[in-house]
Amino acid sequence: MPGPLQILPVPGLPEIRPGDDLAGMVIDACRGADGVGLADRDVLVISQKVISKAEDQLVRVDPDDPQSHKPLVLQESVRVVRRRGDLIISETKHGFVCASAGIDRSNVEPDIAALLPEDSDRSARRIRDAVRGRAGVEVAVIVADTFGRPWRRGLTDVAIGCAGIKPILDLRGTDDAVGRELQVTEVCIVDELAGAAELVRGKATGIAVALIRGVDESFFGEGSVADDIVRDPSEDLFR
Amino acid sequence: MPGPLQILPVPGLPEIRPGDDLAGMVIDACRGADGVGLADRDVLVISQKVISKAEDQLVRVDPDDPQSHKPLVLQESVRVVRRRGDLIISETKHGFVCASAGIDRSNVEPDIAALLPEDSDRSARRIRDAVRGRAGVEVAVIVADTFGRPWRRGLTDVAIGCAGIKPILDLRGTDDAVGRELQVTEVCIVDELAGAAELVRGKATGIAVALIRGVDESFFGEGSVADDIVRDPSEDLFR
Repeated sequence: MPGPLQILPVPGLPEIRPGDDLAGMVIDACRGADGVGLADRDVLVISQKVISKAEDQLVRVDPDDPQSHKPLVLQESVRVVRRRGDLIISETKHGFVCASAGIDRSNVEPDIAALLPEDSDRSARRIRDAVRGRAGVEVAVIVADTFGRPWRRGLTDVAIGCAGIKPILDLRGTDDAVGRELQVTEVCIVDELAGAAELVRGKATGIAVALIRGVDESFFGEGSVADDIVRDPSEDLFR
Repeated sequence: MPGPLQILPVPGLPEIRPGDDLAGMVIDACRGADGVGLADRDVLVISQKVISKAEDQLVRVDPDDPQSHKPLVLQESVRVVRRRGDLIISETKHGFVCASAGIDRSNVEPDIAALLPEDSDRSARRIRDAVRGRAGVEVAVIVADTFGRPWRRGLTDVAIGCAGIKPILDLRGTDDAVGRELQVTEVCIVDELAGAAELVRGKATGIAVALIRGVDESFFGEGSVADDIVRDPSEDLFR
């Protein structure tokens, strides 16, 4: 039986600037947070925004024009999926389908727009490796961003990169509780973990990191969001 | 600052049959589970399947034909959104867009298919009211089901009904950490809570209930999935 999960906000991360040692700062923030620390099999969920800042995925825009980042949206997209008024839903070069190519201007200075990391799986692997090397613990890392979706109002956090955790739990061949083979078989656990972390990070509180403890041992392993979650256009019915 | 969240699996629910007193059984299971109990501001996340069983949303199908529930899919739908081979993505009469109109045959007897509850918000309200009346605690209730989504592989649990909790946290007018008005404004917390609960319920373990403790006080309030989350077709770009 799965055990209880704990989802802990990790405050204390300083304002991140390009070139900052984000992994070191995350380790320090975890150590500094009451009762958090870092242990094997913790899952660190880190907001895309601080990764983009540390990796200098920042572009200067006109602070007085709320639409001045719009040319960047098309530049970061490989195809526009839907457009209505100012809203552009597009497929980014990473394969994500989202609004404004994931570019946003919240929690950055008024003359800055933050692009998505170039390769968020790689960003996650780097932080995981740095935590292993410097803190001596084996954690999983998820890079989370806030996306909308069709048919349902409101946004949720999803994983745009991960390391050390299986993005999808494959239950094919598993029997259900009454012994029939399961029909619902592939659960996207990294998206569920990213959403769970959002619940303690909030949008307005400036908490960019959450730590999830108690994740089932079977969830850990290799995989990447780009390879395992991004659906190939040929098998997608909505592109 | 948001506090830590705990997500506790609640084992011990017996096999549910039509007409069963589900609320009473959930209260008993929470009391029987080590260290769980029930307290004010707990969020109970309950799997759609046990609600459908208790409410007798069960239909007899040919146990030897895995497609024998397909006529029900069209019957429970108001429009087919996409179709490929055996896969039907449709809009249900509740307004959900999902595969097979939410009908499934896992965790039920081979000759049974379970339909979605008629009104999952009402189901959630009834359980919340029963818990208030019989256990004297004020909880929120979320009815969760497992849905796929476009563009991303894997399924996640989302809320199809709720009571006692705001489905969407509206951050419009809230300043971000650097004092700019937030662009990302409406977070669908009930979907994030449903997904978080799935992480401890799993699909194969037969645990139909999870309890989430530590949810921010500001999340509690009134609202329903049908009214607040189901997107009106006129504002939907993918229907």
